[in-house]
Order: sequence, then structure tokens, then C-alpha cells
Amino acid sequence: MKKIFILLVILTNGLLPAQQKIQNGENFAIVIHGGAGTILKKNLTDELEKEYKDKIAQAMQAGYDTLKNGGRSMDAVVAAIKILEDSPLFNAGKGSVFTADGKNEMDAAIMDGNTLKAGAVAGVRTIKNPITAALCVLEKSQHVMMVGSGAEKFVKTCSCEFADTSYFFEQKRWDQLQKIKQTEKMESDHGFVSPVEDKDKKFGTVGVVALDKAGNIAAGTSTGGMTNKKFGRVGDAPIIGAGTYANNKTCGVSCTGHGEYFIRAVAAYDVSALMEYKGLSVEQAAAEVVMKKLKSMGGEGGLIAIDKKGNITMPFNSAGMYRGYMKGNGKKEILIFK
Amino acid sequence: MKKIFILLVILTNGLLPAQQKIQNGENFAIVIHGGAGTILKKNLTDELEKEYKDKIAQAMQAGYDTLKNGGRSMDAVVAAIKILEDSPLFNAGKGSVFTADGKNEMDAAIMDGNTLKAGAVAGVRTIKNPITAALCVLEKSQHVMMVGSGAEKFVKTCSCEFADTSYFFEQKRWDQLQKIKQTEKMESDHGFVSPVEDKDKKFGTVGVVALDKAGNIAAGTSTGGMTNKKFGRVGDAPIIGAGTYANNKTCGVSCTGHGEYFIRAVAAYDVSALMEYKGLSVEQAAAEVVMKKLKSMGGEGGLIAIDKKGNITMPFNSAGMYRGYMKGNGKKEILIFK
Repeated sequence: MKKIFILLVILTNGLLPAQQKIQNGENFAIVIHGGAGTILKKNLTDELEKEYKDKIAQAMQAGYDTLKNGGRSMDAVVAAIKILEDSPLFNAGKGSVFTADGKNEMDAAIMDGNTLKAGAVAGVRTIKNPITAALCVLEKSQHVMMVGSGAEKFVKTCSCEFADTSYFFEQKRWDQLQKIKQTEKMESDHGFVSPVEDKDKKFGTVGVVALDKAGNIAAGTSTGGMTNKKFGRVGDAPIIGAGTYANNKTCGVSCTGHGEYFIRAVAAYDVSALMEYKGLSVEQAAAEVVMKKLKSMGGEGGLIAIDKKGNITMPFNSAGMYRGYMKGNGKKEILIFK
Repeated sequence: MKKIFILLVILTNGLLPAQQKIQNGENFAIVIHGGAGTILKKNLTDELEKEYKDKIAQAMQAGYDTLKNGGRSMDAVVAAIKILEDSPLFNAGKGSVFTADGKNEMDAAIMDGNTLKAGAVAGVRTIKNPITAALCVLEKSQHVMMVGSGAEKFVKTCSCEFADTSYFFEQKRWDQLQKIKQTEKMESDHGFVSPVEDKDKKFGTVGVVALDKAGNIAAGTSTGGMTNKKFGRVGDAPIIGAGTYANNKTCGVSCTGHGEYFIRAVAAYDVSALMEYKGLSVEQAAAEVVMKKLKSMGGEGGLIAIDKKGNITMPFNSAGMYRGYMKGNGKKEILIFK
């Protein structure tokens, strides 16, 4: 009888962790956004809509495969964002918009919900995939945020791929800049301090949040900023707590929208705080931030989030948001409009 | 009888707002920090201790006078921080430490708890008082954060005073850089990614939080960063939510310490969130963040905070923090050690 009891103890001790691993395994999930704003069905051809959806599906699959193979959520985030950065469709990496002086200045951030370590770069110009630079800062430096040429210099310690500034030239983005500059000329009474946002109010940013089989959450965001931006403006994407946040205790969040409002609302961390301190679900917390707080401030945009159980939410208060998710149980959706 | 009743109504209607104003008036308050770290009595001569305390008293008085005269909390914050920035004693403005390549790069932020508007600059080199640049961004731009030469260009739209880079040269700071560079040379095994913080772990930053007679809270922070910093590193001071936050609903906060931890903990906003969502007092919330959360992460430093009722707290988990406060009721203290 004693022997059987001991055997049982060994068996249960040996089995429980494995069972828990399987449970976590079912819960792995990835969620993606490709920017929010005045994205209307009537302005998008069927062909272009398909292009967006196909690219989101491809990025999502890359992150999903990483997770399915037991990879880290951070690597899934980077794998998916790299594909979006390499596409001219999104305002990040190759598709980045132009600043007022005709340059591409990109920002990116990543946070590890397990260690609460974070890495961010702002105003980088020659890194092919800014999200890889953010990961480099997270993993290889004592710092969280690096800007400009200093960031580019540091990132040389990692195996990040560099690209000539000409790689980031996209005719469509260049034409957007010329159009806005013309409009601005006509609105010269606003002069030096005029709003510099897109007239069609598209907040191009890409972001990914992932939960891996080990139960670790990671969130990442990458952006080319605002067309015609001046004065070294930094938006919310590279600001930990504003555009990007992850914490295994609560959730991971990546935002897209009118960055200034997301900074003032500390939007990404606020979702986590509402869950931790008020006991809200990830859906309730994200809705509170996007549909109430940001909306009442005039802050247009949305966010994606995953909690530690794999629950996903993707609220936005604009006309549309490029978005999609895939879960370990096979559930999958890709959406653009409301 | 009717006449007396009407008269009473007029009297109470006329008196109540005035009474409320007097109540607010009694509650106005200002709190200041001049950095935290390994500040030990044995390392500070009586003369130097007096110099620090006198300068804090002078800055505090300037902010207090602004508040007493019915001025805005934002203007009190700027008035007080300008005096600390003009002193070589503190690592901000004139006393800013040197980067690895022998430059002074300063960051500052300010937030208005009434409107939740915020302004921040990072990596500026020729603005005499970086806090005035942050206020300029808050008041005159559509943006929250601007970095480098772009920020300096924008600030020319305001009446901010500029200074030649030679103005920021302080022999003491230069010697600190040479000493650290020597140490770093000896620790060459850490090489490119070595920690670049002061060996004596002083986190020089200045910050002020104020509550004015109208009941509006404002918070501001200004810093010269880390001695020998590289790669365009940005700390917590200019990050809204990390080093600086203000909200009339809850409190105003300015932090000082090992910035990376304050960013990852979203420290300043976390104090506000703990008050708003968990119902903690400003003392409880600040203690939770500084003495528990940051301490468990290894994040050394402290913060100052005022709530909407004028309650003040100044917790720190390091050996010392230059700090002081003055209240509308005349209460006043200036402290350095525990």
C-alpha cells in the first residue's frame, strides 16, 4: 500500500507540469493591427482590400508558426512585424511616410511581459526592420530607449539588417507628402504650429501582441510616424506605457492612433492597470480606454490586446482598423471595417 | 419674512463660491526634488549641505510666491525648476553631466493636470532652461514630445532663452566624465554594452509638483541624463507616465532615479492609477510604487507627489533625496537624508 502511494505521488508530480504545459499550449495566440483611421469600404478597391488581408494573414501565420513550434512570444512578435515592415502597404519600415524634409524616420518598441524588460528606438533611418532594433535594445543594452544616430550605432552590436535610405522610398508616400505640403501652403495662417497629420486621418502603425506556450506575453509596435512631421516629433509607438506594454500578470497591448492622445492617456499601461487594480476583463479594460477615455479626449484610434488566458480584444473608435488574430485552438479572423 | 428669505438666498449664493475659493487657497502647495541616490551625510560637507538646502529653499520660494499670488501651478513649476536648472549643483540645465562624447544633452517634461496636456523635449543642447522648452511644446504645439535639433527649432517660436553650448560647461561634471571613462577602460570586458551610470549612483534630476489656488495640479521634471551616456539614451524624465504625470482627479508626480526601471514600471502614472482604481491615498500609492514595485525590480530612486487636497509625499528607496515642500498653511521642510 505504501509503495502504491509513493508511486502515485511520483506519478502526479511527474504528470502535473506536463498537463499544465498542454493547457498553456492550447491558449497560445497572436493578434495583429496594421493601423487605424478613416478606413472606409468605399475608398478601398476589392483588390487592395485583398492585398491588405493577405499581408496580415502572412504576418500572422509567421508569428503563429513561431508560437506553435514552442518559440518565444517576443520572437513571434518580431517575426510578424518584420513582414508588415517589409510591405509598402503599412506605415512602418519600407512603407514609412516622409517627414517634412523628405526623410523617413521610424520608431519601434517591444516589451517582454515575463521580465518587464523593454526596448525602444525613435527616429532611426537606416535600419531595415526597426522592430529588430527595439529587440536589440531590450536584449543587449542596459537601457530602454535610444534615439537617432545613437540608436543606429548601438544596434550594430546585433545582427540587425541595415538598408540604404533609398530602400525606404515609396512613390505613393512621396506623393502624400507633396499633397499635404500643398494643403499646408494654402493654410498658411496656421503657419509654424499647424497640425501636421494626414488629411485622411490614417494612423499608420503596425503592432503585434502574442501569448506563447510558456504563458509569456509580448507586445511590439512599429511606425513611420506622421506624414510631413517636423521638429523631431515622437509619437506613442516607442513610448512604453503609451503605445506598447506587456505584463504576464495582466495583458499585452499595442496601440495605433493619434499618438499624442495615447501618450497623455498612458493608454497601453492603463488597460493593464484597469485589469490589475479594478479587476476588469481585458475586453472591459480596453473598451474603457478606447471607447470612453480616449474618445472623450478626442483621441482617435484603437488597440489590440491579449490577456494571460489568451482572450483577445481589438477595439477602435475610428472608422476602421486593419486587424486579425489566430488562436492555438484554430480560431482565426481578419477584419478591416466595423 | 419673504424679504429676509430672499436676502438670505442672495447672501448664501454670493458667499459660497468665495468660501470655496478661500478653502482652495489654503490648500495650495509645492514640493521639490533635486535628485536621489547614494547621498550620505559623511560625503557631504556642512557647507555643501547648506548650499543644496539654500538653493532648494530659493526655488521653492519662487514657486510658492507664484502660487500665493494666484498664479498657475504650471508657472510655479517652471519658476522653481528654472532656479534649479540655473544652479551648477543639480544635474539639469547648467549643471548637466556630460555624455560619452563630451556633450550636454538635456531632457525635460511638464504636464497640466487640468487639461491632461503635456510637453516634453529630449536631447536638447542649447536651451538654457529645458523646462521652458517643455512648456513651449505643451502650449504652442499639437505634439507632446520632440527630440534633438527639431525640438530646438520649434522652441524658437516661444520666448525661450538659448545659450551657447559652452554655458553648460562645468569643470566638476567634466572631471566626473573623465573619471568614469577611466573606470570603464579598466572594465573593458563589459565593453560596448557596459552600464554607463555614475559609480556613486547619484540620479541627478530635478522635479517640482504644484497645486494652485484654482485646484489645478502640474508636474515637471528636468535632467541632464547620465554621465558618459551613449547611443542617444533617453531616460524617464521626458516620458509622460514614467517620470512625469499630473491629473487633477488624482495627483501630480515627478520621479528621480534609475530611469530605465521607472519607464518599465510606468512609475508616475502608476501612482495615479493606484489612487483612481484602488482608492489608495497619495502616500499609500507612492509608497507602493517606490518601496515595493520599484524596489523589487531593483529600481533605485524616489518621487514627489501632491494630491488634489494638497497632501504631499516624498518616498525614496535610496540613501538620500534632495527634497522639500511648502504649504499654503505655512508648513515647510527641506530634507536630504532619511
